[in-house]
Amino acid sequence: MQNSFFQKTDLIQIETSPYSFHMITSKLDFWLREIGASEGLLTLLVKHTSASLTIQENADPTVRDDLLTILDELAPETRDYRHNMEGPDDMPAHIKTMLTNTTLSIPVVDGKMDLGTWQGVYLIEHRAHRMNRSIRLFFAGTDA
Amino acid sequence: MQNSFFQKTDLIQIETSPYSFHMITSKLDFWLREIGASEGLLTLLVKHTSASLTIQENADPTVRDDLLTILDELAPETRDYRHNMEGPDDMPAHIKTMLTNTTLSIPVVDGKMDLGTWQGVYLIEHRAHRMNRSIRLFFAGTDA
Amino acid sequence: MQNSFFQKTDLIQIETSPYSFHMITSKLDFWLREIGASEGLLTLLVKHTSASLTIQENADPTVRDDLLTILDELAPETRDYRHNMEGPDDMPAHIKTMLTNTTLSIPVVDGKMDLGTWQGVYLIEHRAHRMNRSIRLFFAGTDA
Repeated sequence: MQNSFFQKTDLIQIETSPYSFHMITSKLDFWLREIGASEGLLTLLVKHTSASLTIQENADPTVRDDLLTILDELAPETRDYRHNMEGPDDMPAHIKTMLTNTTLSIPVVDGKMDLGTWQGVYLIEHRAHRMNRSIRLFFAGTDA
Repeated sequence: MQNSFFQKTDLIQIETSPYSFHMITSKLDFWLREIGASEGLLTLLVKHTSASLTIQENADPTVRDDLLTILDELAPETRDYRHNMEGPDDMPAHIKTMLTNTTLSIPVVDGKMDLGTWQGVYLIEHRAHRMNRSIRLFFAGTDA
Repeated sequence: MQNSFFQKTDLIQIETSPYSFHMITSKLDFWLREIGASEGLLTLLVKHTSASLTIQENADPTVRDDLLTILDELAPETRDYRHNMEGPDDMPAHIKTMLTNTTLSIPVVDGKMDLGTWQGVYLIEHRAHRMNRSIRLFFAGTDA
């Protein structure tokens, strides 16, 4: 390595809307620029069990509509659950979290996440409410 | 970085019960303490294709009951599979593994995994038998 | 650490067949040997939203047949989707990607990925066509 190795961590907050995909790609690339990251690995962890992370199609918004529909069918709010004290949307939210991702690790090349043209990083809000979600960011790699 | 960078790896064994969630959070934080980890990234890999990993709600046990029910509905043992030589629980176990996680990477801050209050790390046993499962641990980061 | 720490990244191309699992284990271990990796973490990211990654059973091919069948049932091409401009196989491919993995991080021990005996790393092609898929490889760790 020509450049020097470092690691850096931070906590970001995202205010969500009910049942929705929140694109966080540019926020993450901004943070990488801010800390002077050049090449390395960016890891995200959403610190909740009723919201999750995914890398998905970033162009046509109807893709996310269909993804939300499918998640709702896989974990419908209308069925009976043993865990039902926190509202009909809570247990489905845990299931949707289990079927998607709580953590993601993304290679960083030339100061940016090395995503494909049609890929975006999304926080998915599975609850029926507007929520404040915390995501831990962790970068390890070389500086610019 | 003020502290010195190191990496450390180990293999742990978990004895499971049939169809169940096994919380391994404290075992992992104990290992991080033991190796003197301060800040970095902990990666887990379960070395099996019929058990898996997830980060889930650590409070109400009925959440895990519901998660097991849903996994059973997504991959029922009562349907026909082409792969059926290893018992009716084997192919469903592979499916449940595919839909959850074989590896997890978790940021470590101040010597502990930076999980949310309600998050725990679980090994999920998908087979109908008591099994011995191996999990590879790998930490890279700074010492205390 | 006795050996010296380094990181290395590369992009590989895989030509796929429609609806299929492509084992890439030996290609990855070959790359690790080529770059002189000893101990560390290998991260993969498939740069597409209609193909994905998984670690699965590497012995009986009917396991992968059953996995493809289940993925098709979870996201059937015969149902209506709002996103339908790119053919009936496109939206199901996004769903299958969301339910499996876009990234994987795998501990490397003694120069090889530390997988279990029955584990293989697979690229899953979810489209109905032969495609050229790019996978970003990123290793950080010690040299041999």
